[in-house]
Amino acid sequence: MSIKVGIIGAAGFAGAELVRLLGQHPDFDVVAVTSDALQGMPLEEAARSFVGCSALAFSAHDDDILLECDAVFLAVPHTAAMEQAPRLLEAGVDVFDLSADYRLKDASLYERWYGVTHTSPHLLARATFGLPELFPDEIRAAQNVHEQGEPVLVACAGCYPTATSLAAYPAVRALGIEGPLVVDAISGVTGAGKKLTERTHFCFANENLEAYGVANHRHIPEMEQILGLEDRIVFTPHLAPLNRGLLSTVYMKMMPQALDGGLASVWDVYDDFYRDSGFVEVLPLGSLPQTAAVTATNRALIGLALHEQTSTLVAVCAIDNLYKGAAGQAVQCANLIYGLPEAQGLEFCAVLV
Amino acid sequence: MSIKVGIIGAAGFAGAELVRLLGQHPDFDVVAVTSDALQGMPLEEAARSFVGCSALAFSAHDDDILLECDAVFLAVPHTAAMEQAPRLLEAGVDVFDLSADYRLKDASLYERWYGVTHTSPHLLARATFGLPELFPDEIRAAQNVHEQGEPVLVACAGCYPTATSLAAYPAVRALGIEGPLVVDAISGVTGAGKKLTERTHFCFANENLEAYGVANHRHIPEMEQILGLEDRIVFTPHLAPLNRGLLSTVYMKMMPQALDGGLASVWDVYDDFYRDSGFVEVLPLGSLPQTAAVTATNRALIGLALHEQTSTLVAVCAIDNLYKGAAGQAVQCANLIYGLPEAQGLEFCAVLV
Amino acid sequence: MSIKVGIIGAAGFAGAELVRLLGQHPDFDVVAVTSDALQGMPLEEAARSFVGCSALAFSAHDDDILLECDAVFLAVPHTAAMEQAPRLLEAGVDVFDLSADYRLKDASLYERWYGVTHTSPHLLARATFGLPELFPDEIRAAQNVHEQGEPVLVACAGCYPTATSLAAYPAVRALGIEGPLVVDAISGVTGAGKKLTERTHFCFANENLEAYGVANHRHIPEMEQILGLEDRIVFTPHLAPLNRGLLSTVYMKMMPQALDGGLASVWDVYDDFYRDSGFVEVLPLGSLPQTAAVTATNRALIGLALHEQTSTLVAVCAIDNLYKGAAGQAVQCANLIYGLPEAQGLEFCAVLV
Amino acid sequence: MSIKVGIIGAAGFAGAELVRLLGQHPDFDVVAVTSDALQGMPLEEAARSFVGCSALAFSAHDDDILLECDAVFLAVPHTAAMEQAPRLLEAGVDVFDLSADYRLKDASLYERWYGVTHTSPHLLARATFGLPELFPDEIRAAQNVHEQGEPVLVACAGCYPTATSLAAYPAVRALGIEGPLVVDAISGVTGAGKKLTERTHFCFANENLEAYGVANHRHIPEMEQILGLEDRIVFTPHLAPLNRGLLSTVYMKMMPQALDGGLASVWDVYDDFYRDSGFVEVLPLGSLPQTAAVTATNRALIGLALHEQTSTLVAVCAIDNLYKGAAGQAVQCANLIYGLPEAQGLEFCAVLV
Repeated sequence: MSIKVGIIGAAGFAGAELVRLLGQHPDFDVVAVTSDALQGMPLEEAARSFVGCSALAFSAHDDDILLECDAVFLAVPHTAAMEQAPRLLEAGVDVFDLSADYRLKDASLYERWYGVTHTSPHLLARATFGLPELFPDEIRAAQNVHEQGEPVLVACAGCYPTATSLAAYPAVRALGIEGPLVVDAISGVTGAGKKLTERTHFCFANENLEAYGVANHRHIPEMEQILGLEDRIVFTPHLAPLNRGLLSTVYMKMMPQALDGGLASVWDVYDDFYRDSGFVEVLPLGSLPQTAAVTATNRALIGLALHEQTSTLVAVCAIDNLYKGAAGQAVQCANLIYGLPEAQGLEFCAVLV
Repeated sequence: MSIKVGIIGAAGFAGAELVRLLGQHPDFDVVAVTSDALQGMPLEEAARSFVGCSALAFSAHDDDILLECDAVFLAVPHTAAMEQAPRLLEAGVDVFDLSADYRLKDASLYERWYGVTHTSPHLLARATFGLPELFPDEIRAAQNVHEQGEPVLVACAGCYPTATSLAAYPAVRALGIEGPLVVDAISGVTGAGKKLTERTHFCFANENLEAYGVANHRHIPEMEQILGLEDRIVFTPHLAPLNRGLLSTVYMKMMPQALDGGLASVWDVYDDFYRDSGFVEVLPLGSLPQTAAVTATNRALIGLALHEQTSTLVAVCAIDNLYKGAAGQAVQCANLIYGLPEAQGLEFCAVLV
Repeated sequence: MSIKVGIIGAAGFAGAELVRLLGQHPDFDVVAVTSDALQGMPLEEAARSFVGCSALAFSAHDDDILLECDAVFLAVPHTAAMEQAPRLLEAGVDVFDLSADYRLKDASLYERWYGVTHTSPHLLARATFGLPELFPDEIRAAQNVHEQGEPVLVACAGCYPTATSLAAYPAVRALGIEGPLVVDAISGVTGAGKKLTERTHFCFANENLEAYGVANHRHIPEMEQILGLEDRIVFTPHLAPLNRGLLSTVYMKMMPQALDGGLASVWDVYDDFYRDSGFVEVLPLGSLPQTAAVTATNRALIGLALHEQTSTLVAVCAIDNLYKGAAGQAVQCANLIYGLPEAQGLEFCAVLV
Repeated sequence: MSIKVGIIGAAGFAGAELVRLLGQHPDFDVVAVTSDALQGMPLEEAARSFVGCSALAFSAHDDDILLECDAVFLAVPHTAAMEQAPRLLEAGVDVFDLSADYRLKDASLYERWYGVTHTSPHLLARATFGLPELFPDEIRAAQNVHEQGEPVLVACAGCYPTATSLAAYPAVRALGIEGPLVVDAISGVTGAGKKLTERTHFCFANENLEAYGVANHRHIPEMEQILGLEDRIVFTPHLAPLNRGLLSTVYMKMMPQALDGGLASVWDVYDDFYRDSGFVEVLPLGSLPQTAAVTATNRALIGLALHEQTSTLVAVCAIDNLYKGAAGQAVQCANLIYGLPEAQGLEFCAVLV
């Protein structure tokens, strides 16, 4: 199969990862990559990793060739995605959006957290939430839409919501929890994006740990929506000195009956839940995940522990924020919608070191 | 003043930091540094940072010169400290212990968590808990003991308990909390010690994040003792790729009345509480601490945030695990007991980068 | 094609990279991986990156199944390789050796630099030097041997010699240089191996730069052999705090006539020389290579500059020491000998960050 | 003694280090710190390391209080220093310049390498070159000027020239070398400054090695001037992923007679040369310096090795580029000129890790 794809916002970290993944994918053919700032520049001049690897050059975001693509991936900041999606869908192009613009089902929630008016709220109901392990029915519905010849709009889940929800979902949905959900997560610096800021200057990020956005990070409503926990998620993201990697540690007070069988039975629930999810691995009890085990792959590793005295389940999930947390997840969604093997073109095995 | 001191276990990370701090201190005179493994070796051969900086050589742990010291600092693993402390105290030598051996007031707790019999439980009642900001009375009592000519035994607080307790204490003790205390902390790799393990190999620790010892780390009973929260602390330590730095993020469900004045009044409580603590700084609301701001200093920075919907206070504390979390704290305790300025010989201002 | 392969010494860094590359390779079928220390242990227990990725378990180095392989890759330290190669060749198995044991054509040189007796010097003449870009004829000869049904022995080039020789060869061989060749190289810490040493402890390697083995590193005779510069190479390797990456900066005093056309004509010589080498890229004048551009790929990037006043050509080459400098190069050699596309199963495009 | 000092350009890396060092110095009193961009902002808001450590706020570069200082340190880029120095000197203020503006004795050389006209070339003859270990006479002459009540202008040596010249000077000046001097140096990222560039973004600098400015770096004429080697220095700086640290590896072809006594006699020459230099340590033969051993100190460590076959001496010097390579050196110069102990207020012993 040869599916013609374009990537809008290909100069950023997630965009460049998409270029790499789609460029090596046997079923996709990248015909356009855009960057308003770098239009005209060959990729191999713009990015060290493409030297000798790519014959593409950046075009503008409104390049007409995008309208002739089968699918376009949006790797732009929020608000920039909703400037592109409507005209692409209108032209019959499938849209895989990595931004936040179509993730929240409730436009007013979007407007509250992002401080801007949503310019295409009518598309929200139509958007498929792109986190296939947790929302397989949404993906299947989108497959049907695609098979009927209609363009699909997939709002791929964000990095923190992906790791956090994979860690929490079986406990929250299948077992039930009480009270607030505490989420304490750590991200590598790619999570802060390519923009030049003092915070991402090597000398400030290196040999440093910091928390940021405590209790007000924009990924909170997305996690609340996924887990059905309105106003119950206390989320603290941290920044640590590594490029890629995201670890989310989630604390959940379990219902008493859920612990009747001890941690072992909770583990069984998780293991059953992810049995058919090729990318998710529930580690044996006693093991906890390391982000390096999933770097540059689409995998998610989950470890579980229990604080018995307080009935608190601690679930830890490791992903690569740019891969399973962004570009890889988008490709996984596309694979599914186009009827390809879910793991086509996606890495499964990380380098050891 | 010239106080003769020895350092047992001077080859480890905390020990080397003690050598450096006590060696530069105007009132202490380091007369012996010990390492059973390296005895006879000059420090400047054993450790790159002492090249040209030290004329000392390692002697054995049982070097008799230690018995002639005014004070001996123990930077050895647990169990090794209780092999040394009794004979030193008997000889009239003050003991500043950086290990866990005399921190827990209850010997049975020690034995449960450390899996060994405590060989000098009679000393536990006599031991001063070394965390001056939270236990000034204990330090004052030890000053009195010292002034009466009796040797003192100070059990300096551990790194995670120091950061965590500084973050939680005013809320827990002055305001009151409900339910469990969730502690999610991140440490640099010096926290894992100098021992050679795959985990601390550069290539495994670098570009990696991991959680470890979830719900069973040995610092838990120490935190519970400090905060008076038996069986209520859910603690997850993480390892991140930097040398020094420890960030503890603490989640506390506040009593409703404690939040009557909002976060601002909680902040006032913290600020008041630490007004006289020169090393602790409560950051303005909106600011969160960075570990790099305290690297190689004895300082602790605290930031506060509130998740209103769940009445959860999030307190974040940054310290240098080898300094305020180990060697610096021991020197601070010694300064106080010997009637010196609390900050004598201790760094206050970190390098910017 | 399905070629049965085994990997002896699969627990080390280069060995694990071979497991990963050969495991994903469409034409190789890994049937045995060995580690004397870890025999019996499943790979996914032994190494974080193989969790859920491999059903293999380590067997012993003398596992008989190796004798039934088409090819065996030796990722063991020097001397351990010459314990294995003879019996494998005798059994008709092709050997791809990543160690130093069969690289030097002169056994006495081996014995001088490595301080041990060579136990199979008769194989040296038969060994193919595995650096395809510089010794295509050797590879072709080995292809013929293979086609005639005889087993081949390939001594794959070392990491420093690969980067250094790729940087220097066109100048040395096609243009001619005067006097000594100064080689100043920097390696990531994987180059120091998986063995636990203080030097590779995260806290000692991090935030540090050091030179080591000045003028006596064991890769010197290999570089001298490749470049035909006996006793003329002054080599200083350095260690820097990153996992993968090797940068070799080579200083060559050029013959006057070689500079008649200036740097541009030297560049043309390099570009011509590597025209057919898919993995080697000579960067445009003004550009210098970055190791991150080749991480986890089999590529080599070369940049050139000229110090006119002293007629010194500065050639800089970047490779991934574990990939093009070890496992990838071995796979490249195997691809060629088995008549597969040279880049089969080898990564070409690095992650951007 | 209380010497009133100001720091122009205090927001940069070297400037902040000056604020820290001079702020802790017993004999200096910092009365003004300037930053045109941040004027009015308290230091503790501008820089994480000054939280709770400084009551100063930035004023403008032309703050009149500077004219009332005893000394002003210029930590500004080249050209900005020559805008300040003349009026300060005219006002009788001593100037310690960390920029390149007054380092080169020959204004035409400055203009060639920096591409700008020197606006106060008449001051060049009067400027003292600030590298006390190599130019003690210049410092002494400046002391005399100071004692006679005249203001002094000290042009402190740059980071690469300091490490390189300390490594090369005894060989070049006392023994004599032939041919070109090859200098291959590696710097941490603070060497690239605080300015926000893609190159200093954490994700691009991390896990990367690169060479830059081959054969055309602006520190070349300064090294040539110090060592008296016009057009004979081939210099390649590299960037490695650490904050502080600079390692310079220098290759020198020795005159035959200089090697009559072998490396041991060369070592003696170095050791004699630096006998009275408290900050410089010549390591025992067989040892090579590590930058971590001098981080946040004013020290320089030198190691020597010999490639006998080519009579090439390899000298390696490690410094902290922001300390001995910038702020520390300026304070050392000031200490000497004001008759204070040379090491006053300067760190001597690094942290181990």
